[in-house]
Amino acid sequence: MSTAQHSAQELKTLFEEYLFEKAFEGFPDILLEPAMQIMKTKAKRIRPVLLLTACEAFGGSAREALSAASAIEIYHNFTLVHDDIIDEADLRRNVETVHHKFGINKAILTGDAMLIQAYDLLSHSKHHTDILPVFKKTAMEVIEGEQQDVDFEDREEISLKEYMEMIRLKTSVLLAAALQIGAVIGGASEANQKKIYQLGMNLGLAFQIKDDYLDSFGDQKTFGKKIGGDILQNKKTYLLCKAMEKSGEKEKEEIKTTFRETNPDVKINRMIDLYHQLSIPEDTENQMEAHYNQAMKYLQEVSLDPKQMIRLRQLAEDIYQRSF
Amino acid sequence: MSTAQHSAQELKTLFEEYLFEKAFEGFPDILLEPAMQIMKTKAKRIRPVLLLTACEAFGGSAREALSAASAIEIYHNFTLVHDDIIDEADLRRNVETVHHKFGINKAILTGDAMLIQAYDLLSHSKHHTDILPVFKKTAMEVIEGEQQDVDFEDREEISLKEYMEMIRLKTSVLLAAALQIGAVIGGASEANQKKIYQLGMNLGLAFQIKDDYLDSFGDQKTFGKKIGGDILQNKKTYLLCKAMEKSGEKEKEEIKTTFRETNPDVKINRMIDLYHQLSIPEDTENQMEAHYNQAMKYLQEVSLDPKQMIRLRQLAEDIYQRSF
Repeated sequence: MSTAQHSAQELKTLFEEYLFEKAFEGFPDILLEPAMQIMKTKAKRIRPVLLLTACEAFGGSAREALSAASAIEIYHNFTLVHDDIIDEADLRRNVETVHHKFGINKAILTGDAMLIQAYDLLSHSKHHTDILPVFKKTAMEVIEGEQQDVDFEDREEISLKEYMEMIRLKTSVLLAAALQIGAVIGGASEANQKKIYQLGMNLGLAFQIKDDYLDSFGDQKTFGKKIGGDILQNKKTYLLCKAMEKSGEKEKEEIKTTFRETNPDVKINRMIDLYHQLSIPEDTENQMEAHYNQAMKYLQEVSLDPKQMIRLRQLAEDIYQRSF
Repeated sequence: MSTAQHSAQELKTLFEEYLFEKAFEGFPDILLEPAMQIMKTKAKRIRPVLLLTACEAFGGSAREALSAASAIEIYHNFTLVHDDIIDEADLRRNVETVHHKFGINKAILTGDAMLIQAYDLLSHSKHHTDILPVFKKTAMEVIEGEQQDVDFEDREEISLKEYMEMIRLKTSVLLAAALQIGAVIGGASEANQKKIYQLGMNLGLAFQIKDDYLDSFGDQKTFGKKIGGDILQNKKTYLLCKAMEKSGEKEKEEIKTTFRETNPDVKINRMIDLYHQLSIPEDTENQMEAHYNQAMKYLQEVSLDPKQMIRLRQLAEDIYQRSF
């Protein structure tokens, strides 16, 4: 294997150069500013870095995977633009959302144009005939997961099984597809593609459950967001679904009373107490670690050079530990 | 040429069978009902019938073009779903719009899923490598035209040149692309593809200008909509842009005073009087006929069997005369 190997940081730099210099060629001028409003927001670029790392791990050149990596990142940001309209969110990562700055009409059309751009980048990618079906399935699943999430808001109780299916669709399949698409471009066998897809799926589930966990039990400094945001919004999370599942009538009433509490600090503290009483932190840690371990098990099953195995494991670990 | 030839009505029937039995395979169940809300609305299916006719005219089989025809119709309806949100329209062709019936959130996601479905159908079509670039360019242009239309609403005066460019993008390029894609699948030469694209472009311009004309000067019975709808909304149309272009300061003031008139009948009659004073009906008729004649000129230049030429001319004529 003579291809150059890059660190995750190097891949991120390489990727962002391509993203801003090449990936928006042919994009309508009239919608470029709103698109850049979200694309230029500081971001980890987890999906493209996974894609490019997988490509290199199987002996491919990261440069040949840059258009596919851009497609995945632009697709991801398209979903955020439309999601922020749906959630009526004014800020994302402390930056004004597209619809808040440019209006809902422009945000809808900017998202639409970004989806078209993503498809176009993919259809020009190496191995596009193998990649397009993976992307189509994934893109549809993400939209479906978003619709489930919207529907959940109007329902009082969501089973843990329903919640897990929603986050599988809304979050995990795109990480899985990023790894698979990188593997395809790198020349991986079908068997290896399947394993690495499952790696991504389980990493995505572990990542999302940990996100829910950190929102209530994280260290405010390292988490970067205010603790208890999900609790204040009565948001359906792994913690809440698990708590409802474990509760008898009495505890369910206590949870529902807490939903109506208007003092933010009282509300957060009361819900965190309830979670502790029901051992939710321990259950959640177990669940996220189980998925993380499952991801590592799939990684072990991929036929890869040991050096590449270590590299992929390190990246997964860094993403999971929020140290990337 | 041994391939079966179908009338426009037969092609429409063949198309709708495929559209409802095959084209939505793999579409998320959760979004199928809102998608069918618009797809099942009675429609002429102008774009797929043009596509299938062009395919047969060049010796192709309509059946091989059904997935591409579905893609174009689903794409067109996706733009309508998002456009109706933007225009805050409650009704389309006397049927409740998707967002009015299912809410804005579901309508945004339904549109997104329809765009993905359209791309997927195209990427499975015969000659997809030649078709995808035509579709991408067109899909982006339509979005750009929609954004221009939105921007025009907030501006007092739009030049005729700006208006023509907007309708070229928003309406005409999709008719042109439908014909070109049909021609590609039918096996047309590149030279013929270009001519038939220009035919579609000019037919689209003639069609849209006539639409504006009929809104003020049509026969209410045959037009199917209430006369003067555009006038009541102060909508930028060919008539209005032309009238502003021809007006001196005095007439411009009269037009602007009419914009503020609150009695609907008075408003419509006053604007129609102004249009007559400025000879706008004659100018508009000349312009739409010039584009229609240009379309026919391009048709003459296509190398086609005379029988096929007559067939395409008849379809264009029927679309223009609203008799299809």
